[in-house]
Amino acid sequence: MQGQAQQQAYDRGITIFSPDGRLYQVEYAREAVKRGTASIGVRTAEGVVLAVDKRIRSPLLEGTSVEKLHKADDHIGIASAGHVADARQLIDFARRNAQTNRLRYGEPIGVETLTKEVTDHIQQYTQVGGARPFGVALIVGGIENGEPRLYETDPSGTPYEWKALAVGADRGEIQEFLEENYDEGGDLESGIVLALEALASVNDGSLSPEGLGMATVDAESEQYVELTKDEIGEYLDAEGLLDEGEEDGDADDEADE
Amino acid sequence: MQGQAQQQAYDRGITIFSPDGRLYQVEYAREAVKRGTASIGVRTAEGVVLAVDKRIRSPLLEGTSVEKLHKADDHIGIASAGHVADARQLIDFARRNAQTNRLRYGEPIGVETLTKEVTDHIQQYTQVGGARPFGVALIVGGIENGEPRLYETDPSGTPYEWKALAVGADRGEIQEFLEENYDEGGDLESGIVLALEALASVNDGSLSPEGLGMATVDAESEQYVELTKDEIGEYLDAEGLLDEGEEDGDADDEADE
Amino acid sequence: MQGQAQQQAYDRGITIFSPDGRLYQVEYAREAVKRGTASIGVRTAEGVVLAVDKRIRSPLLEGTSVEKLHKADDHIGIASAGHVADARQLIDFARRNAQTNRLRYGEPIGVETLTKEVTDHIQQYTQVGGARPFGVALIVGGIENGEPRLYETDPSGTPYEWKALAVGADRGEIQEFLEENYDEGGDLESGIVLALEALASVNDGSLSPEGLGMATVDAESEQYVELTKDEIGEYLDAEGLLDEGEEDGDADDEADE
Amino acid sequence: MQGQAQQQAYDRGITIFSPDGRLYQVEYAREAVKRGTASIGVRTAEGVVLAVDKRIRSPLLEGTSVEKLHKADDHIGIASAGHVADARQLIDFARRNAQTNRLRYGEPIGVETLTKEVTDHIQQYTQVGGARPFGVALIVGGIENGEPRLYETDPSGTPYEWKALAVGADRGEIQEFLEENYDEGGDLESGIVLALEALASVNDGSLSPEGLGMATVDAESEQYVELTKDEIGEYLDAEGLLDEGEEDGDADDEADE
Amino acid sequence: MQGQAQQQAYDRGITIFSPDGRLYQVEYAREAVKRGTASIGVRTAEGVVLAVDKRIRSPLLEGTSVEKLHKADDHIGIASAGHVADARQLIDFARRNAQTNRLRYGEPIGVETLTKEVTDHIQQYTQVGGARPFGVALIVGGIENGEPRLYETDPSGTPYEWKALAVGADRGEIQEFLEENYDEGGDLESGIVLALEALASVNDGSLSPEGLGMATVDAESEQYVELTKDEIGEYLDAEGLLDEGEEDGDADDEADE
Amino acid sequence: MQGQAQQQAYDRGITIFSPDGRLYQVEYAREAVKRGTASIGVRTAEGVVLAVDKRIRSPLLEGTSVEKLHKADDHIGIASAGHVADARQLIDFARRNAQTNRLRYGEPIGVETLTKEVTDHIQQYTQVGGARPFGVALIVGGIENGEPRLYETDPSGTPYEWKALAVGADRGEIQEFLEENYDEGGDLESGIVLALEALASVNDGSLSPEGLGMATVDAESEQYVELTKDEIGEYLDAEGLLDEGEEDGDADDEADE
Amino acid sequence: MQGQAQQQAYDRGITIFSPDGRLYQVEYAREAVKRGTASIGVRTAEGVVLAVDKRIRSPLLEGTSVEKLHKADDHIGIASAGHVADARQLIDFARRNAQTNRLRYGEPIGVETLTKEVTDHIQQYTQVGGARPFGVALIVGGIENGEPRLYETDPSGTPYEWKALAVGADRGEIQEFLEENYDEGGDLESGIVLALEALASVNDGSLSPEGLGMATVDAESEQYVELTKDEIGEYLDAEGLLDEGEEDGDADDEADE
Repeated sequence: MQGQAQQQAYDRGITIFSPDGRLYQVEYAREAVKRGTASIGVRTAEGVVLAVDKRIRSPLLEGTSVEKLHKADDHIGIASAGHVADARQLIDFARRNAQTNRLRYGEPIGVETLTKEVTDHIQQYTQVGGARPFGVALIVGGIENGEPRLYETDPSGTPYEWKALAVGADRGEIQEFLEENYDEGGDLESGIVLALEALASVNDGSLSPEGLGMATVDAESEQYVELTKDEIGEYLDAEGLLDEGEEDGDADDEADE
Repeated sequence: MQGQAQQQAYDRGITIFSPDGRLYQVEYAREAVKRGTASIGVRTAEGVVLAVDKRIRSPLLEGTSVEKLHKADDHIGIASAGHVADARQLIDFARRNAQTNRLRYGEPIGVETLTKEVTDHIQQYTQVGGARPFGVALIVGGIENGEPRLYETDPSGTPYEWKALAVGADRGEIQEFLEENYDEGGDLESGIVLALEALASVNDGSLSPEGLGMATVDAESEQYVELTKDEIGEYLDAEGLLDEGEEDGDADDEADE
Repeated sequence: MQGQAQQQAYDRGITIFSPDGRLYQVEYAREAVKRGTASIGVRTAEGVVLAVDKRIRSPLLEGTSVEKLHKADDHIGIASAGHVADARQLIDFARRNAQTNRLRYGEPIGVETLTKEVTDHIQQYTQVGGARPFGVALIVGGIENGEPRLYETDPSGTPYEWKALAVGADRGEIQEFLEENYDEGGDLESGIVLALEALASVNDGSLSPEGLGMATVDAESEQYVELTKDEIGEYLDAEGLLDEGEEDGDADDEADE
Repeated sequence: MQGQAQQQAYDRGITIFSPDGRLYQVEYAREAVKRGTASIGVRTAEGVVLAVDKRIRSPLLEGTSVEKLHKADDHIGIASAGHVADARQLIDFARRNAQTNRLRYGEPIGVETLTKEVTDHIQQYTQVGGARPFGVALIVGGIENGEPRLYETDPSGTPYEWKALAVGADRGEIQEFLEENYDEGGDLESGIVLALEALASVNDGSLSPEGLGMATVDAESEQYVELTKDEIGEYLDAEGLLDEGEEDGDADDEADE
Repeated sequence: MQGQAQQQAYDRGITIFSPDGRLYQVEYAREAVKRGTASIGVRTAEGVVLAVDKRIRSPLLEGTSVEKLHKADDHIGIASAGHVADARQLIDFARRNAQTNRLRYGEPIGVETLTKEVTDHIQQYTQVGGARPFGVALIVGGIENGEPRLYETDPSGTPYEWKALAVGADRGEIQEFLEENYDEGGDLESGIVLALEALASVNDGSLSPEGLGMATVDAESEQYVELTKDEIGEYLDAEGLLDEGEEDGDADDEADE
Repeated sequence: MQGQAQQQAYDRGITIFSPDGRLYQVEYAREAVKRGTASIGVRTAEGVVLAVDKRIRSPLLEGTSVEKLHKADDHIGIASAGHVADARQLIDFARRNAQTNRLRYGEPIGVETLTKEVTDHIQQYTQVGGARPFGVALIVGGIENGEPRLYETDPSGTPYEWKALAVGADRGEIQEFLEENYDEGGDLESGIVLALEALASVNDGSLSPEGLGMATVDAESEQYVELTKDEIGEYLDAEGLLDEGEEDGDADDEADE
Repeated sequence: MQGQAQQQAYDRGITIFSPDGRLYQVEYAREAVKRGTASIGVRTAEGVVLAVDKRIRSPLLEGTSVEKLHKADDHIGIASAGHVADARQLIDFARRNAQTNRLRYGEPIGVETLTKEVTDHIQQYTQVGGARPFGVALIVGGIENGEPRLYETDPSGTPYEWKALAVGADRGEIQEFLEENYDEGGDLESGIVLALEALASVNDGSLSPEGLGMATVDAESEQYVELTKDEIGEYLDAEGLLDEGEEDGDADDEADE
C-alpha cells in the first residue's frame, strides 16, 4: 500500500487505474457500504431469508421508511447496505427488468439473470466517465426453478453467489459468525434464527424488533413475504435475544438510515 | 475525520467518494440547509401541520414573498429549508408530477409516491456529473388513503417518514423538543401548538406572526390550507408566545430568506 | 469565514458548495451587482416608481444608451444593477415570456409570474455546469389585478417582494434611508420624491437629471412611462436636490455603465 | 485590486466571477483591444465619420488588406480595434443580420438594433463555457430614420451610444481630445478633421494617408462611402497634419494589423 | 524508468503518451490483471484446454459463481484473469459477435476473427477519452477449420496466438513452467495434466478441485465442455497433486474473485 | 513580457486571453511556423511566384513528397510553412471551397474570397474549445479579374495582402531582403529570380534545385504551373546561385519536412 | 530544449502547442514507435519489399500472430512499427478505404491516395481533443500505374515518399545503412537482400527466419505476396546471415510484439 499523497493522486479521477491496478473510487464506494448498517442473507433448503439492521436515530422516525428491504418481484427480494438513495436507483432498475422479463417472456426472471443485469449496470458506472460508482451492496435472494438462490452485488459490479452472507457494518465479524454456524440443510426458521443470532452477535447479544426488518422467499410458494414486527419479536423472544431497552440511535450514521 | 488539506481534495469533484466513503458535496449541501431558517412538520391523528420560520430582514420586505410553504396539490403541502431557488425547482417538479398523476390516473398522487419521485430526482444530481446537489430539504405532508403522512427529503435523495420533524437551523434542538413533547394521538390544534412551541423554544420563547408561516392538511377535507397572520397571532397569544417587539432581521442569513 | 486559500479552492468550480454550504460563484455575482450604480424601486398606493443612477463617465456618451431602465410589457418595468450585458439577456427573456403570455392567454402576464419565470431561469445557471451565474439584480415593478407590485431577482435566483428597495452600489445605506422614510399610503409623486431623496442621500445630497433615469407604472392606466430629463429636473429642483455642477464620471466603474 | 497570485486563480476559468465580482477574461479581452491601433467615430449633424489607424509594418504589405473599416450594410459602417480575426467574425455576423432584416422586413436594419444583436452575440461568449470572449471592440455608425447614430460594442457585450469616441491604443488620450474639441453641430467635414486631429494628437502631430482609413455615412444619401488615399491626403495637407516621412512600422503590434 | 513524481504526471490522463512513449493507464490495467488469480490455456493436437484458479475466500461462497470460465459459442471458450466485472463486459461483447456471425453468415465465427473483434473493442478504450481501459486479460480457445487455436487479449488491445500461456498472478513462473514442459504433439489429457501441473507449481505442489475450473474444446466434437469437480479431482489424484486440506482464502485478493 | 511561471499559467488553456490580452496558443502556433523551412511569395506585374525551401534530410527521401507547394485551383497556388499535416487540412479545405464555387457560380473563386474563407476557418480553432490552432502559415497566390494577388494566412486567422513576403524560418531576414530588392513592375522571371536570391541570402548564397520547389500563376494564362528541377537549376545557374555540393539535411527539423 | 518541469506542463494537454511550437504528445507517440522493433521498406525497379523484425519473447508464442505485415489490398502491403493495437486500427481504416475505392470507381486505389487518406485520419487525432495520437508508423508499399511506390506515415500525420526507409527501433542506424547501400536500379531480390542486410546490421550480423516477416509487391503481377519462413531462411543462408542460435526475447519490449 502506498502513502497518503500517492493515494490522493488517484481518487480524483473517477474511472482510472492506480499504478498497482486498483480502482480507488470503487474501493471508496465499498467504504460507503461499510458506513451503512448490516444486512444479512441466508439460503436454506426451504428458501432464502433476508434480515436488515435499521438502527433508528429518533423515536419520531418511522422505522418502516428506512428502506433496506425491497420486493423486486413476487419471487425475489433484495436487501441493501450503504447509500440509501443509490440503492433506490438499483432497486428500480431491478424491478423494471423483472417486469420486462414477465412481459416479454411470460415468466418470472431468474435470480442469477436479474443479479447480472444489475451488476452489468453497476460496472458501467465504474468504467465510463461522468458519474461515480454506486455506493451500495445488494443481497438478491429468490427462487429459481424451485431452488433458493442468494447473490451479492458489490460496487465494482461483480456478482457472487452465497450460501449465507453479510454486507455493511461489521461484515467481517458477522460473516465469521455465519461461517461457524451455517447449516446448509436447515429449514426457513433455522435461517431466520441464524440471521438474528448473527446480527445480535455484534449488538451485545440483544436486538429490538423496531430496529429490524426481515423477509423470506419460500421455495414452495415462491412468494416474497416480509415479517411483521410482532413476528420478529416472537423469534427474538424465543431465542432470548429480545432487547426491550431504550434505543439510542446513532445520529452520525447518515449513510444508511 | 481527516484534516483540512485532505478534505479539500474531495470537495472539488462533485460526485466522487472520499476514502472513507463520504460524498462531501452532499454533506456541504446539508450545511446549506442548516443556513436556512427552520421548518417544522407535525403529524397528528387529524392531519398534518407545517410551520416555517421566515425571519424578515427588512420591514419593507413582504413576508409573504419569502417562499417556504408551498401547495403541491390540493391534498399535499411542502415546507422547505435551505437554498430558496433550489427549493422552487423541486416544488415545480413535485407539482408537475402531482398534476400528471391526476391526468393519467384520474386520482390524487400518494404522498409517499410523490416524495420518492422527488428524492429520485435529487439523487441524480448527486451521482451524475455536470451539476451540484440541491441545497434544500423538504417536508412533504399530506393525506393518503385518508391517513396523514409526513415525509422528509434530504440532499442525498433519501426519503424518510416522520411523526414530527424539523429541518434547517437549530434542527437538533427543535427535534429534541419535538421528541419530548410529541403526542401521537393529538388533534390538529395540538399539532399547531406543538410546532409553535418548538419554534419558540429556539427563539427566546416568543414569536411574531409576521415572521411565521403555517399550513395544515386536514384528513377529513384533504385540503391544504394556509393560516392567516391573524390566526397564527391568536394561537401565539393563547399560548403566551406572542412577541410584539421589533423584529431585528438577520441580514447575513441569505441562504434562506 | 475561512481564510483566503480555502476560499480560492471553491471559486473555480462554478456550481459546487463550500464546506459551510455556500455557493461562492453566486456570492461573487452579488459583488458584480454591487459594482454597478444603484437602482431603486418604490411601491406606492397609486403605482410603482423605478429610479436608476446612470453616472456618465464621458460627456460624449449618450446617457440614454446606458441601459438600466427597461419596459418589459405595457404594464411592467424593470430596473437593473450590475453587469449590463447580462441584464440585457434577462430583459429579453422577460419580454419574450410576457409576449408569449399575451399570445397564449390573451391577457397581460402577472408581475409575480414573470418574476418567477426569470428567477427560475437564473437558478439554472447556478446549478448546472458550463456557464456562470448572471451578475445582475433586477427590480421588477408593475400592476397586477389593479394592484402595484414590486419584486427583486437576485443572482441566486430567489424572488423577493418589496414595498421599496435598492440594489447595486450603496444598497445598504439607501435601503436604510428607504426604511426610515417609506410611507405605504403615499401617492406616485411621493414615491418619485422618496426615490430621488434616497439616491441623493448617497450623492452628497444633490443629483443631476442627466445621470438619472425614472419610470412609473400607474395603477390606473397600467402603463409604463419613462420620465423626461426635464420632468426629473423639475422634481429635483422642487426638492432642492438639483446639482447643476460638472459631472465627474467614474471611469473605473465599468461593470454597470 | 488583488495581487498577482490571486489573479492567476481566476483567469484560467473562462466564464467565472472573481471574489470582487469581476470577469477577468473579459477584462483581458479589453487588453487585446488596447493592443490594436486606434479607431475613431464622430457623429456630426450631417452624418457619421469613421477613422482608423492602420500602422503598416512593411512597405510590401498592402494597406488595404489591413481590415479595420467595414461596410455592414448600405447605410452602416463599422470600424474595429483589437483582434482582427475576431472582428471578421462579428462583421460577418452583423452583415448576415442586416441582410436578413432587409429580406424579412423589406427595410434597412436600425443602427441600434444591429448593435444590440451584435452585443447579445458577444455576451454569450462571456457566460457560456467552451469558448473565449471576442478580443475586439467595434464602432458601429450609420443612419437610422434620417438621424446619424454612433455605437460602441465592447468585449463584455455592452452597447453604448456616443457622440464621438475612440477605441484601441491610446483610447484615453484620444477620448480626452475629442471631449475638448467636439462640436455637436458640426458638418461632416468638421467631423473628418476632428477625427484626423485626434489621431494626430497621439502621433506626434502628423499622419500619413497610407496608414489611415476613413469612411462616412451621410444622413442625406444614407450611403457608406470610403475616402480614397488622396482624399485623406488632401484633408491632412489642408490641416497641416501631413507626414511625408518614412513609415516605421511597429513589428510587435501583432494583435491588430 | 523515471521517478515517482514524473510517473504521477501521466497516470491521471487516461489516454496520453508519456515522454518515453508509454501508456501508463494500459500498464496499470496490466497490474489489475496480475492482481487476479491465474488462468491457463494449452493448445494440444486434439483441442484446447482452459484451466482457472478460483481461490475461494469463504466456505459460504459458491465457487461456481466465481466467473473465470465462459462459453463464448459452442466451439469457443474464454478464460479470464483480472477485474471480473470488466471481463463480463468483454464476454458479453464476444457472445453477441459470435451470435451475429452465425445469424449473418450461417456459420460459426473463427477464433482469430472473434479475438480481433474483441481486441479492437479493447483498443478503443485506450485511445478515446471518457473511459478507462479494461482491467482484464482473456484466453480465447476454440476450433477453427478443425484446428485448435489459442489466443490472448491484453489490456492494450493486442492479440497474440499461443501454444500455451498463462495470465494473471504468477504469470512469469507459470509461463516458464509451460515453456519447459510443453509438448506440441500431446493429446487433450496431456494438456489437462500440463495445465494442472503448471498451476500446482506455484501452489506448493497441490491443488483442491473446489478452487479450480477447467474446460476443453475438442477438435473432433468442436464442443466447449466444462469438467466437473469430480473429474478435476480424479486428474489431481492421478497426478498426485490433490490437496485435501483446508482452504485459506486470500481475503485481500479482491480484484479477481 | 512576463516571467516563465506566469506564462505557463496561460498556455494550458487553449482559447483564453492572458492578462495583457494575448492568446499564447496562437503565438506558440506561430513558433511552429518558424520551425518550418521558408516559403516565399512574390507578386509581379505578370503573375505571382511561389518558392519553397524543402531541405531534404535523407537522399532516399523523395523530395517531391515534401508537400509545401499545392495547386488549390487552376488559377491559385498555395505555399505553406510549418506543420505539414495541418497544412494538408487547410489545403483540402481550400480545394473543396474552390470546387464548390465553380459548381455553384460557374466561375473561378476569387483569391481574396478563398483566403478569407480559409482564415475564418482558422479563427474558429482559436476561439472555440476542444482543438488547438493550426500550426501553419499559407501563402495564397493567384489571378483575380486578370490581376495577380498574393495573400498570407497566419495562425490567428488574420488575412494579409502582400506584394512579396516570406513565412517560416528566417522570415525576418528574407522579408528584409525582399523589401530592399522588390520591384513592383517586374516580370515573372524577375520575380522568380528575386525569390531565389532571397532564399539564397539565408543559405550561404547558394541553393540546390533538389531542395527547392517553385510555381507560378501567370496573369495571362491564369494557370498554376510548377517549375521542373531542371528549370529551377537553370535559373540558379544563370544567377550564380547553384550549389552542386552535398546536401546535409537537418534531421532535427521535423515540423516541416 | 527546455527543462523537465517545463516539459511536464505541456504533455498533459493532448493537442496544444508548447512555447517553442512543438506538439509533445506527437513527439511522445514517436517514442512509442521507437519502442517497437524495426520495419523496413525498399523500393526497387521491379517492385517494393517490406521486411519486419518480430522478436519473439516466448517459444510458445506463435510468431505469425505478431502482426507487423499487413495486406491492405491486392496491390498494396503495409508494414508497421510501434503500438500494435493502434496499427490494427489504421490498417482496418486503410482496408476499408481501398475496398470503397474499388466499389466506387471500379479500380484499385493509388498508393499515394491511400497513404494520404491514412495521414489525414492520423492528423485529426493530433488536433481535435478527446483522444491521443496514434503511436505507430506505417510503411505503405505498392504499385500505382505500374510503378512501385513506397510511403511512410508518421504520428503527426505527415506523408513521406521514400526509396528505402526504416521505422521503429534503431531507425537511425538502419537508415544510414540503407543510404550507403541502396541501389535504385536493383531487382526485387536485391531489395530483399538489402532489407535483410540492413536488419542484420543492428542484430550482430545474423538473423533467424522465425523472427522475421517479409513481403513483396511485384510491379508485374501487382500482387502482395508474403515470403515463407523457408524462403526467408534461404535468403539468409545465401547471404551468410542465418542465425540458428537460441532466441532471447526481450520481455520488456511490450509496445510492439
